[in-house]
Amino acid sequence: MTKVRIGLVGLGNMGTGHAKYLIDKEVPNGELAAICDLREDRLAWAAEHLGDNVKRFTSYEALLDSGDVDAVIINTPHYFHPEQAIQALRKGLHVLIEKPAGVYTKQVREMNEAAKESGRVFGIMYNQRTNPLYAKLRDLIESGELGEVRRTNWIITDWYRSQSYYDSGGWRATWAGEGGGVLINQDPHQLDLWQWTIGMMPTRIRAFCSFGKHRNIEVENEVTAYAEYENGATGVFVTSTCEAPGTNRFEVAGDRGKVVIEDGAMTFHRLRVSESEFNRTFKGGFGQPECWKIPIATPGDSPQHKGITANWVSAIANGTPLLAPGEEGIKGLMISNAMLLSTWTDNWVDLPIDEELFLSKLQERIDASSTEKKSGEYKTLEVGGTH
Amino acid sequence: MTKVRIGLVGLGNMGTGHAKYLIDKEVPNGELAAICDLREDRLAWAAEHLGDNVKRFTSYEALLDSGDVDAVIINTPHYFHPEQAIQALRKGLHVLIEKPAGVYTKQVREMNEAAKESGRVFGIMYNQRTNPLYAKLRDLIESGELGEVRRTNWIITDWYRSQSYYDSGGWRATWAGEGGGVLINQDPHQLDLWQWTIGMMPTRIRAFCSFGKHRNIEVENEVTAYAEYENGATGVFVTSTCEAPGTNRFEVAGDRGKVVIEDGAMTFHRLRVSESEFNRTFKGGFGQPECWKIPIATPGDSPQHKGITANWVSAIANGTPLLAPGEEGIKGLMISNAMLLSTWTDNWVDLPIDEELFLSKLQERIDASSTEKKSGEYKTLEVGGTH
Repeated sequence: MTKVRIGLVGLGNMGTGHAKYLIDKEVPNGELAAICDLREDRLAWAAEHLGDNVKRFTSYEALLDSGDVDAVIINTPHYFHPEQAIQALRKGLHVLIEKPAGVYTKQVREMNEAAKESGRVFGIMYNQRTNPLYAKLRDLIESGELGEVRRTNWIITDWYRSQSYYDSGGWRATWAGEGGGVLINQDPHQLDLWQWTIGMMPTRIRAFCSFGKHRNIEVENEVTAYAEYENGATGVFVTSTCEAPGTNRFEVAGDRGKVVIEDGAMTFHRLRVSESEFNRTFKGGFGQPECWKIPIATPGDSPQHKGITANWVSAIANGTPLLAPGEEGIKGLMISNAMLLSTWTDNWVDLPIDEELFLSKLQERIDASSTEKKSGEYKTLEVGGTH
Repeated sequence: MTKVRIGLVGLGNMGTGHAKYLIDKEVPNGELAAICDLREDRLAWAAEHLGDNVKRFTSYEALLDSGDVDAVIINTPHYFHPEQAIQALRKGLHVLIEKPAGVYTKQVREMNEAAKESGRVFGIMYNQRTNPLYAKLRDLIESGELGEVRRTNWIITDWYRSQSYYDSGGWRATWAGEGGGVLINQDPHQLDLWQWTIGMMPTRIRAFCSFGKHRNIEVENEVTAYAEYENGATGVFVTSTCEAPGTNRFEVAGDRGKVVIEDGAMTFHRLRVSESEFNRTFKGGFGQPECWKIPIATPGDSPQHKGITANWVSAIANGTPLLAPGEEGIKGLMISNAMLLSTWTDNWVDLPIDEELFLSKLQERIDASSTEKKSGEYKTLEVGGTH
């Protein structure tokens, strides 16, 4: 296959972004062939900016059955990602889904199984994996430079959202409309990077979510979570949407030192000999290993969404390994679900989580949700403006 | 009273430090009148460096009954602080105790009651309260500059201790010998400052202590704790003695911005209008309050131990208010005890804690302790080298 004919499902903010670089042929072998949306204004925008060579559909099924596309990029509301991905995969199409993979791991697991059965190329828009800062951190850990990971601490509180933001859509920040708050809407990239960079998933989590803190909303908008890993490492993840100016600081301590990513820059505090070796050989009182403070350059572009799309297209066309396999979307979501479940049960949550228990507790909240539009009525048109 | 005649109880590292500035008359109205220690070498040191005008005792009771001192500074092992302070207070002497106030709050509460009944001046060596960085933070919060405190995060992991350090005394890092690990030995200042700077004690704590992590010791040497406050604020406190190079970063987010203390410097991220006001009036989508990043100068000396001693002497001689009243020693210890108790019970701990429950759980560990010297045999001589 030389050309991959792509259909965009949902032409909101994200879908429109993809349309622009695809129509400009910025993705090798990627050809924008069709779009699907219900909104008149989005269809009109497509007609004007994409031209009639890009087919326009108002029915997702019609797009899938058209024979016009080999692959789809799904940019609809969270709840729809798994079911729409499963439909496309079963019809033999390759799929790239916007994050999050879904709202609860049970539906995402079904999607992953469908992907496996289909043999199609299934990716997820974890564009932050193309950010050289996080790619470098993963490299430092995978290569052994940092030594065994011992402790992580990510403060990611720079997601400021005012009440007026939440009031801009009745479905926003509701259990029925979005299935969660800061964890499902703002943090999917960080929750993915938290496990992707260190190459470990927590074995258990104890988390403390605040719901509607300083805001009139249903869902969690401030979270502190503590995680434990199989090797004895511990981690903290703190996030908020009601704090200004907020912090984005990720610290990882390992046997050979410490890496800090803050303000878009990385510092590696590198021990000359590992902590464990120093501890084994040192015979004095208050000494500690010699440490070098090294600013780490992280050159290279951060191709972001376009980079993920290009990698996915190349995987379809040339068999290139995926940077962000769709099946990995369940990892960050599992952590996210575990944080909510730990709060709801006021207890530890072992990973993998009890998916049925999570879903039943989520369903209680969906049923009691005050959203103006229940998720059953949720249409593609609501995607505009979500991030 | 013009001169305050001071007796030093325990002439280890800390006691010797006090002796030096007192004999040099660096504390106005403070006169070093006597010392007490069991060790021949420390008595010889005192004879040589302090002269015969400073009386030497090997019995604490004899020192108290000598009539040579108006006040004592207690620099003995942790477990002894409360009982020795109570003895002195009941004999009408003023008391300044080294931190921690004690090992468990029950004994410290008894000490506080004895202090109250005595009417004597009772201080605690919280010398970090004289550090202009933390004094400034307290000022910014007390004066309202930072607005209502919403979230704190203190990573204080730069307490590196090797196995050889722990092996330097059989009583070190044992339940019987010291009554705890990093919380009772290294962190008392930070645990005090954590509540003193923000002016709030947690209402409940959920903590996760690791005991003997990467070290052959009994006690906790890595801790992650989550705290909640009456006003809805949350906090995280992370500490470790087995991490290199370690971090010391204290962040406090408030309604009017954020203060970060790191690498000995303070930065105030100050909002032009408070978050709550912005949120009330903003009508747009993604806006947030204008923020000014301000490096805050914290001029002034950090007189440390000498400063606390001088303040305490001035309180005795002139009625000056105490910077670190002894009764406040229970606050940091309460937080410390709560962190251990939360781990031992694997549950929340409400503050004030159940003191009897804590003591019974501590006693179990003391009884099972492998220390070479049980606390009953613990003599003043072991103080040398502790910090």
